[in-house]
Amino acid sequence: MAQFNSGDVLSLCKRRGFLYPSYEIYGGLAGFYDYGPLGVTMKQNIIDLWRSIYVLEEGFIEIDSDIVGPEMVFKASGHAENFQDLMVTCKLCGEGFRADHLAQDFHPNPGALSKAELQALIQSENITCPLCKGDLSDIEEFNLMFKTKIGPGSGRIGYLRPETAQGIFVNYPNLYRYAREQLPFGVIQVGRAYRNEISPRQGVIRLREFNQMEAELFVDPADKSWKRFAAVKDEKVKLVPNSDEKEIETTFGVAVEQGIIAHETIAYFLWVTQRFLRRAGVDPTRMRFRQHLKTEMAHYAADCWDAEALLSFGWTEIVGVADRGCWDLSRHTQYSGAELMAFKRFDEPKEVERDAFKPKYGLLGPEFKAKSAKVGKALEGLEVSSLKDGKVEVDVDGERFVLTDKYFDVVRIKEKVNGIKVVPHVIEPSHGLDRILYTCLEHAYSTDGEYTRLGLSHESAPIKVGVFPLMARDDLDNKAMDLDRKLRESGIVTYYDESGSIGRRYARMDEVGTPFCLTVDYEVFENGTVTIRERDSSHQVRIPFEKVVDVMKALLDGKSFDGIA
Amino acid sequence: MAQFNSGDVLSLCKRRGFLYPSYEIYGGLAGFYDYGPLGVTMKQNIIDLWRSIYVLEEGFIEIDSDIVGPEMVFKASGHAENFQDLMVTCKLCGEGFRADHLAQDFHPNPGALSKAELQALIQSENITCPLCKGDLSDIEEFNLMFKTKIGPGSGRIGYLRPETAQGIFVNYPNLYRYAREQLPFGVIQVGRAYRNEISPRQGVIRLREFNQMEAELFVDPADKSWKRFAAVKDEKVKLVPNSDEKEIETTFGVAVEQGIIAHETIAYFLWVTQRFLRRAGVDPTRMRFRQHLKTEMAHYAADCWDAEALLSFGWTEIVGVADRGCWDLSRHTQYSGAELMAFKRFDEPKEVERDAFKPKYGLLGPEFKAKSAKVGKALEGLEVSSLKDGKVEVDVDGERFVLTDKYFDVVRIKEKVNGIKVVPHVIEPSHGLDRILYTCLEHAYSTDGEYTRLGLSHESAPIKVGVFPLMARDDLDNKAMDLDRKLRESGIVTYYDESGSIGRRYARMDEVGTPFCLTVDYEVFENGTVTIRERDSSHQVRIPFEKVVDVMKALLDGKSFDGIA
Repeated sequence: MAQFNSGDVLSLCKRRGFLYPSYEIYGGLAGFYDYGPLGVTMKQNIIDLWRSIYVLEEGFIEIDSDIVGPEMVFKASGHAENFQDLMVTCKLCGEGFRADHLAQDFHPNPGALSKAELQALIQSENITCPLCKGDLSDIEEFNLMFKTKIGPGSGRIGYLRPETAQGIFVNYPNLYRYAREQLPFGVIQVGRAYRNEISPRQGVIRLREFNQMEAELFVDPADKSWKRFAAVKDEKVKLVPNSDEKEIETTFGVAVEQGIIAHETIAYFLWVTQRFLRRAGVDPTRMRFRQHLKTEMAHYAADCWDAEALLSFGWTEIVGVADRGCWDLSRHTQYSGAELMAFKRFDEPKEVERDAFKPKYGLLGPEFKAKSAKVGKALEGLEVSSLKDGKVEVDVDGERFVLTDKYFDVVRIKEKVNGIKVVPHVIEPSHGLDRILYTCLEHAYSTDGEYTRLGLSHESAPIKVGVFPLMARDDLDNKAMDLDRKLRESGIVTYYDESGSIGRRYARMDEVGTPFCLTVDYEVFENGTVTIRERDSSHQVRIPFEKVVDVMKALLDGKSFDGIA
Repeated sequence: MAQFNSGDVLSLCKRRGFLYPSYEIYGGLAGFYDYGPLGVTMKQNIIDLWRSIYVLEEGFIEIDSDIVGPEMVFKASGHAENFQDLMVTCKLCGEGFRADHLAQDFHPNPGALSKAELQALIQSENITCPLCKGDLSDIEEFNLMFKTKIGPGSGRIGYLRPETAQGIFVNYPNLYRYAREQLPFGVIQVGRAYRNEISPRQGVIRLREFNQMEAELFVDPADKSWKRFAAVKDEKVKLVPNSDEKEIETTFGVAVEQGIIAHETIAYFLWVTQRFLRRAGVDPTRMRFRQHLKTEMAHYAADCWDAEALLSFGWTEIVGVADRGCWDLSRHTQYSGAELMAFKRFDEPKEVERDAFKPKYGLLGPEFKAKSAKVGKALEGLEVSSLKDGKVEVDVDGERFVLTDKYFDVVRIKEKVNGIKVVPHVIEPSHGLDRILYTCLEHAYSTDGEYTRLGLSHESAPIKVGVFPLMARDDLDNKAMDLDRKLRESGIVTYYDESGSIGRRYARMDEVGTPFCLTVDYEVFENGTVTIRERDSSHQVRIPFEKVVDVMKALLDGKSFDGIA
């Protein structure tokens, strides 16, 4: 097999209609790619597979929220402050660069350097503009969100979302209600997200406009066990734990027992991720899970793993699975004032102790007269956290009263409660859809320089079967078109082709990853059979014309090709 | 049936998870709506239906292009110049308003007024700010595209696309190649588009972020007949032609014959639109096609029709079908320099006459010596349109020569050609997805004040069948869950519910438009049957437990309920 690089894969993608560099007639736009006809179908296949796993098998619900959002949402999420890269600008030509990219010839891992360290390196090594050798500005933070203005006039500042997740968090009250106010519940979203890269590179790996599939699972913070974990714990997995950064092969169960993976819920969704990626067509020998280093992990994250794929540019993150703790909901509570909590009902009412106000009715009476009973009652209903500087405010029939602490004691009381309110923790499997699709393409790609084959999985392949008449005459074409229509009507995506030699037609289908081809030749008139050919083995067998739809369905469902003869 | 308005429908949508006003915990954001779990599924159902019509039945291909685009694309499309509303700003409070909205109490149709006329009206009527009574600024044009900056530093100006169509036009060379360089061919796209409304209103009808389904059909400008039109020409349609603006009922065929609809291709896609909308669930008695008035129509459009639905706010455009002529491709050719044409092959080579350069070799020889033959040949290959001020430039082996007209004559020649290049015309059916979905909801909505039913079409309904055990005990629940799983595995979306009375459960399903409910009661143990209930008739029949999946499939495929008993 000839060596190849990502350029070869992208060139096939453009030639055959998977991926087009955007705005090419206008000279292109770095960091933007369009999906062509085969790419759209393949992307939809991957989404459908993922959705069937999360919605049908795991019971998640789905939403579709807006891409443009108001500034406050991204202040709450932390993106307004922290979603940034370090940048230098050429004083001469005005071009901007990522500081760590310019430093990469001078340091083994410039991405890990602080702003001050990078600044010092650029100065000590006299790094200049790679385009015009001009002097560089000091390093500045560049926020990576695309900014816009909503409405006319002074308008409101808005941003294009940097991740689909926030649309789920801000809808928490609606979604919690939809989920009948029970934990755990999970929500997915598929859609565009944006990152205004300083210098995009690597084809579709680092895009400014990209597609995500994110799942947010809301769980009881006190219980991160997972019922279905027992069924998968013996499955194997390759892990790179952050303790020593060495790849190990183990099982999900052992990794949890040994404390390598923080808990069952994370481990279960790593398993879900692994199964999904394999079915989509990621090569199991070229994938692994790498745990974030303590220095990489967000301060609020309890554990975080990346599914990495080995690509021509090295190991690349394609999915992240993180325990984000209560960060997201707490921040949105803080910024919006909305209560984003879940009520955890006890199996039976529990007696709990808490601090409470005990009104001194003897003093309230003379002061508040007829209202004193109501004032006392209101005071009893307040949390003691509302006490500020020895005073507390109560609301009675729309009137406000300020009570100093001479009117009450704070006492420890016992009461029966049915449950408590908690801020759910969030477990987030977040998928880079474009990266996953590209990984499937690169892992499927092989070439000898002349003949190129995409060994796409049955589930990802945009065309499931090519349908050819041996010749476009003698009623063979009508028979083939009839077959083609039958297959389409049964929901199988076909490609009808009658031009060129059969060999060329097979080659064209192999090049776009079509797993099977059907050829209608003269034997159809003799014994009613047609030829079916499997892409990866090039093997051919004859099957009855009348059974084609059933055979194709069985093959696409995973039946082995050798079993159908 | 009680009267209702759009607020009632939107309130149901929010309560039951179809549509959520966006960013509600932050006080909301006008012109933005999110799709909840049932809304996502319903939207996906409508997209799937539309896609099956355009891709499977009509043979269109699909792409998915970027939302953010560079300025030049929208200069070419005309949006940078013309996609605008007339706006006034309050000098006191700074709020912006659409000038025509403020004028609506003073004129029957302020939207049709020119800028100067509106300005005069505002002055003569002393119209002030509706919020604070402040004085208003002069009218300004407000461009409705969301603007952003791509990349760091000075960056490039970018816009969020105002329609998905442009992504198809700028990919024309890729798509023409994918379509094997034949006309006609069609391309669809589903995705977000943006319109930075000055003052959004009417729920999801006038959104700032919305969803479109657009089809662009590229046709031979000299042939706008349509092969399959013959099969549909006798179907009925309600039209409001622009000649007298009166609604008529006729057939597509007659409308083309009488010159009401410009040609067969437009008429055919009006039929496709009508059939799609009806299947999605738009009430046929509340829809029609209205032809754009000459004054409304874009100057380049040959004909343009809106599919309108009657909603609680009056007749509302939900689809537009336009013949856009060569406008789009010509403009992008003009701005990009790329050749966006199709080669129209003649059935057999034709002799054509054209002007051509005839070199005077007697004069070229002495001047160009050894190169004179090549110079002459190059000249013969040029179009005479390259003649500027009596001079023409030729390229020979990388060298440029300027020839004055003493070196050539311009003569009329005859030659055989295999075809000609043409700029395809574009027929565009453009669908407002959110509006279509909302129309299906409003047309399906009925209420008596207590009990509310959504009579959604089988194809749009997000849940196809509710599955209930009569009681959550005595093995009835296990039987029902078994049934539920079987239905899901066969691809039918179900909702399992065991809480509350059966009547309440039916009511909950009716309210979200679920067409059927299955109840497992004690008879299942006696004679192996369960009850199936139809939403719209409330009729119930018993069917064998074992046949439920087949019966459900037949019903969803359109079999009548009375036929299954």
